[in-house]
Amino acid sequence: MNSMKPQAAIVGASGYSGEELVRLLAGHPLVQLAAVTSRSLAGTPVVEHMPKFRGLVSPELKFTASDPAALAADDSLDIVFLALPHGVAAEYAEALVAGGKKVIDLSADFRLGSAKLYEEYYGKAHPNTDLLEKAAYVIPEITPDGWQSAPLIASPGCYPTSIITPLAPLLKAGILTGKGIVANALSGVSGAGKKVDEAYLFAERAESAKAYGLPKHRHLSEIEEQLSTAQGDTVVINFNPHLAPMRRGIASTIVAPAAEGATIETLYQCWQEALGNKPFVGILKSGKTPDTAHVTGTNRIDMSAVYDIRTGNFVITSAEDNLLKGASGQAVQIMNLWLGLPETAGLL
Amino acid sequence: MNSMKPQAAIVGASGYSGEELVRLLAGHPLVQLAAVTSRSLAGTPVVEHMPKFRGLVSPELKFTASDPAALAADDSLDIVFLALPHGVAAEYAEALVAGGKKVIDLSADFRLGSAKLYEEYYGKAHPNTDLLEKAAYVIPEITPDGWQSAPLIASPGCYPTSIITPLAPLLKAGILTGKGIVANALSGVSGAGKKVDEAYLFAERAESAKAYGLPKHRHLSEIEEQLSTAQGDTVVINFNPHLAPMRRGIASTIVAPAAEGATIETLYQCWQEALGNKPFVGILKSGKTPDTAHVTGTNRIDMSAVYDIRTGNFVITSAEDNLLKGASGQAVQIMNLWLGLPETAGLL
Amino acid sequence: MNSMKPQAAIVGASGYSGEELVRLLAGHPLVQLAAVTSRSLAGTPVVEHMPKFRGLVSPELKFTASDPAALAADDSLDIVFLALPHGVAAEYAEALVAGGKKVIDLSADFRLGSAKLYEEYYGKAHPNTDLLEKAAYVIPEITPDGWQSAPLIASPGCYPTSIITPLAPLLKAGILTGKGIVANALSGVSGAGKKVDEAYLFAERAESAKAYGLPKHRHLSEIEEQLSTAQGDTVVINFNPHLAPMRRGIASTIVAPAAEGATIETLYQCWQEALGNKPFVGILKSGKTPDTAHVTGTNRIDMSAVYDIRTGNFVITSAEDNLLKGASGQAVQIMNLWLGLPETAGLL
Amino acid sequence: MNSMKPQAAIVGASGYSGEELVRLLAGHPLVQLAAVTSRSLAGTPVVEHMPKFRGLVSPELKFTASDPAALAADDSLDIVFLALPHGVAAEYAEALVAGGKKVIDLSADFRLGSAKLYEEYYGKAHPNTDLLEKAAYVIPEITPDGWQSAPLIASPGCYPTSIITPLAPLLKAGILTGKGIVANALSGVSGAGKKVDEAYLFAERAESAKAYGLPKHRHLSEIEEQLSTAQGDTVVINFNPHLAPMRRGIASTIVAPAAEGATIETLYQCWQEALGNKPFVGILKSGKTPDTAHVTGTNRIDMSAVYDIRTGNFVITSAEDNLLKGASGQAVQIMNLWLGLPETAGLL
Repeated sequence: MNSMKPQAAIVGASGYSGEELVRLLAGHPLVQLAAVTSRSLAGTPVVEHMPKFRGLVSPELKFTASDPAALAADDSLDIVFLALPHGVAAEYAEALVAGGKKVIDLSADFRLGSAKLYEEYYGKAHPNTDLLEKAAYVIPEITPDGWQSAPLIASPGCYPTSIITPLAPLLKAGILTGKGIVANALSGVSGAGKKVDEAYLFAERAESAKAYGLPKHRHLSEIEEQLSTAQGDTVVINFNPHLAPMRRGIASTIVAPAAEGATIETLYQCWQEALGNKPFVGILKSGKTPDTAHVTGTNRIDMSAVYDIRTGNFVITSAEDNLLKGASGQAVQIMNLWLGLPETAGLL
Repeated sequence: MNSMKPQAAIVGASGYSGEELVRLLAGHPLVQLAAVTSRSLAGTPVVEHMPKFRGLVSPELKFTASDPAALAADDSLDIVFLALPHGVAAEYAEALVAGGKKVIDLSADFRLGSAKLYEEYYGKAHPNTDLLEKAAYVIPEITPDGWQSAPLIASPGCYPTSIITPLAPLLKAGILTGKGIVANALSGVSGAGKKVDEAYLFAERAESAKAYGLPKHRHLSEIEEQLSTAQGDTVVINFNPHLAPMRRGIASTIVAPAAEGATIETLYQCWQEALGNKPFVGILKSGKTPDTAHVTGTNRIDMSAVYDIRTGNFVITSAEDNLLKGASGQAVQIMNLWLGLPETAGLL
Repeated sequence: MNSMKPQAAIVGASGYSGEELVRLLAGHPLVQLAAVTSRSLAGTPVVEHMPKFRGLVSPELKFTASDPAALAADDSLDIVFLALPHGVAAEYAEALVAGGKKVIDLSADFRLGSAKLYEEYYGKAHPNTDLLEKAAYVIPEITPDGWQSAPLIASPGCYPTSIITPLAPLLKAGILTGKGIVANALSGVSGAGKKVDEAYLFAERAESAKAYGLPKHRHLSEIEEQLSTAQGDTVVINFNPHLAPMRRGIASTIVAPAAEGATIETLYQCWQEALGNKPFVGILKSGKTPDTAHVTGTNRIDMSAVYDIRTGNFVITSAEDNLLKGASGQAVQIMNLWLGLPETAGLL
Repeated sequence: MNSMKPQAAIVGASGYSGEELVRLLAGHPLVQLAAVTSRSLAGTPVVEHMPKFRGLVSPELKFTASDPAALAADDSLDIVFLALPHGVAAEYAEALVAGGKKVIDLSADFRLGSAKLYEEYYGKAHPNTDLLEKAAYVIPEITPDGWQSAPLIASPGCYPTSIITPLAPLLKAGILTGKGIVANALSGVSGAGKKVDEAYLFAERAESAKAYGLPKHRHLSEIEEQLSTAQGDTVVINFNPHLAPMRRGIASTIVAPAAEGATIETLYQCWQEALGNKPFVGILKSGKTPDTAHVTGTNRIDMSAVYDIRTGNFVITSAEDNLLKGASGQAVQIMNLWLGLPETAGLL
């Protein structure tokens, strides 16, 4: 019965994004979660490792080995999600794309257009510049149609989604000057992944807030490249990420100089036209700021803006769930659109 | 035996700042906590209302009534702390100053130099412009000597302390241009006071981060006035406060354009000269960001900076305990200096 | 199109349980959320008051007035959920039952079989003993068939569900003596409802754990009455509720003397027979304890047990989401069964 | 000047208890923190590793190597605190005691009187039964005078302190039967130490409560041995520890059958006589339950009790800071008494 549904696999599901992918695909009404791979957990039932999914994920579903060639050769698979560490994803991507699979990569391996920028930010030459060129970076609300013909989709990072989604339409429409932008963002601790490190212990992070990764966090490359595309010119910004003591969520606050003639009304009108009918965008009235608690557990990004007449800047705020709209939810949204399914399937 | 010590009173100790004042003064080795007043709690033992201070505060100490005239006439009192809501403090201040008491006001009533600015931000004429003129605004690390002769000291706000302390010396020394500054700050929820409001319920704030008060939070007036004094010219900034799900602490991240010729070395040299020997300032190496968890429970402010060659901006970070260096700890530090006691007495 | 689906209304949706009901019914595939009432919010769009449901709840859906008679007379309604404070629910229940509506009451008004017990624990005579007699108390996994013919279902409390579900089958099967049971439970703060009280402020509850309501919390009446029914004899226990600094979840730990001949194997066998095929029960291996983080956001209750040879007691542990299996999720589960829909509809 | 003060050393200060010891001894008015040792950190300034103590701990103080023989031979040292993992402490203890140092051991190595019990709970023969016999287990409020002549003091565990302190006087006075006691306890996550393990990551523990270590947590041995001593007969209990999402604090709730004739009044009278004048004990009125938030940051244990007429049990509750009264604060309290200093020196 399920064999008519597209068959999806998740490669590398041991982290937080992988877990969310399992949850979303196991509950997806129009796609079948056919395989979940893990080198270290092969043979273990998925629910044993993810006890929170008892009742949702079939007790029969077991982790399988992660051989790229075998996955590529598996004719039953239609689409593969890579939830792997940066650097590891590329080798899987190559084999799977060669095997004709649709690939959605949640790592940073194919997010940049420029191989040079990749080298600058990741400290080594890009392993597959050919595939890098063919890959598409997709924020469904922003990326123009046509991406569907790419063999591989790079699913955007959590910080970038929270900053690019509200800014890109405004830059494109000339509402912002594109100069002097300052983006601050607060992330829940799951944004650091399931990294077993003293810095991420409960007793270290509870009751703690701090900036980190200043001034050149890796996500900056992805943010600036996308904003530059939207602006049609090089955009250089300050990006200040912070950890806040919560499990999930990103709240971004962006100060951006208004272009001449731009007003809070033209800003909202621009958002309304570009994003007003998007199912996963919430546009809040000016003066009402987004709250991560209102979006965690959903695939939505909420946004709002005020104009500061004293400085001539807009202050733009957004909130999203770093693991959903900022990672796995968005990846499933991309899949829905790629496979021609309703955009919101399995995501409400 | 204690009668030789200066005698201090706290007016209005029911909020979080008031509580911290009780703790600090009850444990102070060189000052006697002589009275704690509260209209609603008069007659109740203080420890009954503040059970966390059992063993520290004498069970004999009871809340007394809050009559300004009676306090002013009490010859045994040397110094009075006002931990009252904004607007209420002014009437006490007038009577107490007239009665010859040293007054340290933790409210916003006397923080601004300009009565006009007060009216703009607080929506009503200042109730006592004469005393406003005589009052001194004191961040002990920043404010030049001479403030000791004022009859009333306005103890600074929590956000302002976290932003002015690192910036003022840099503006004074010409390290920053003073233009285009963007200050973001994350505050623990106690920053909102003990306000019984749905927005501050645990289930609303846990796992929640959000900006608020954009673009013109009341503390902005105080920040800009002090920065302008340091710069010797009008400084206008963007200030974006946020709530983060922790009880205490403020982490501020300030993007400030470097003046011509300024480098990260000149910045640190300036800090070293201005603040290097201050007992409550921690200057962290460039690249190491302050963490609120390392300062909560202390009267310290930690600060650090990096230079972003791409934008020409410094990114300056600071962390403090909003209730200590941001409120009651600083008030006690002011008292120590005012009374000629060691600056750190009762604060380590 | 939706008119073929059963039509449901929620009366009094301003609290946390009400919010969860809105979420579950708005997303339910087989039932239509037709009305949400609130005296104070009549006319306001529901999503304006519950911004986290933007995108899920239609922007057209507005709160309507809460008139019992009008609701009772509304022929389009099939089933009504009462998410009202204790004491207020009874008056609605009477009118709605008289009007032929199926009523699921989330308050405590109809949870006890004994009007005398009600008076003992709630401090006043029961307002409608006739309806009390006809009402059924339903934990779907435990309550024997036949309840479907009752005009009103009392949806159980959060603590009771966490304690009765694992214990009732064991008492019925004679695995426990029924004497000397001690039940401890830790609840997330949302268990206190959206009560605007100093005790529930973030800064009061974060980093705080405490017992409360000792020794005779109101839920004790409901727990003992159900356990007594299961045992066929009066069961008297110690029940110690606690608040823990989390938003959601209940973890219960129950020490219960083993009956003669009972072993950990017979206990698990009993659970397996009684609960093993229930979709919302997770039975964990002995030695593996339930974690609230694994059940929050789900309608599941996880349970486990060990035998302590030194004391002859079983130590039984359970975990559930206080707002789902402990309140609104269970109410929807009851509705599903009552209306003949699949038990898990809208709940996975 | 400081050379007149007793000189203290801390061996193994990298964990949370060690950190608290550094803080307490660095700020102690009557004792000099002379050395802090760490194998891995030798040569590093202490404040670099513990940035929260900047301003409190001298920047000159560096970690030194941890050689037992060298420490034992250092004539300047008077007292040594061992904040080492269980099993490692014993070898240091032996050398230091032989060298004539007063030793306070915060590990579990010398907490039990019975070597057999040690072997049962710790899975290996005790390494130094001779010293085990000479060592004294000291809760200053409970342990009878005379312990001061022991060469080594075993500082009690966090759970045991929270349970033994309220129960021991009651057992000794015959207020409790000593049978059928059930002790539940909720601990903050720092109770697990600074253990870098996936289970203690922020994203795993936030919003999570769970029991663990059932039914025979290692601390049970220590609890039962002390309660048996108090009772004059073997006491066997159920002890159920839990993790709650907070950094610090233990809240214990103990159900204990009342002895014949015992009433809530005789219980309180017993407490009053045994503990009423102890500086670190808070006895709360019946009906008012201790809150961890009221004791964290202090060396106090708060306690309260109610009588449940329905079951004939007392329900006794206590709260303490697991790192202070439950570890380092109590160790310093022991030191104060051992050295003949005021009990509260450095602890208020």
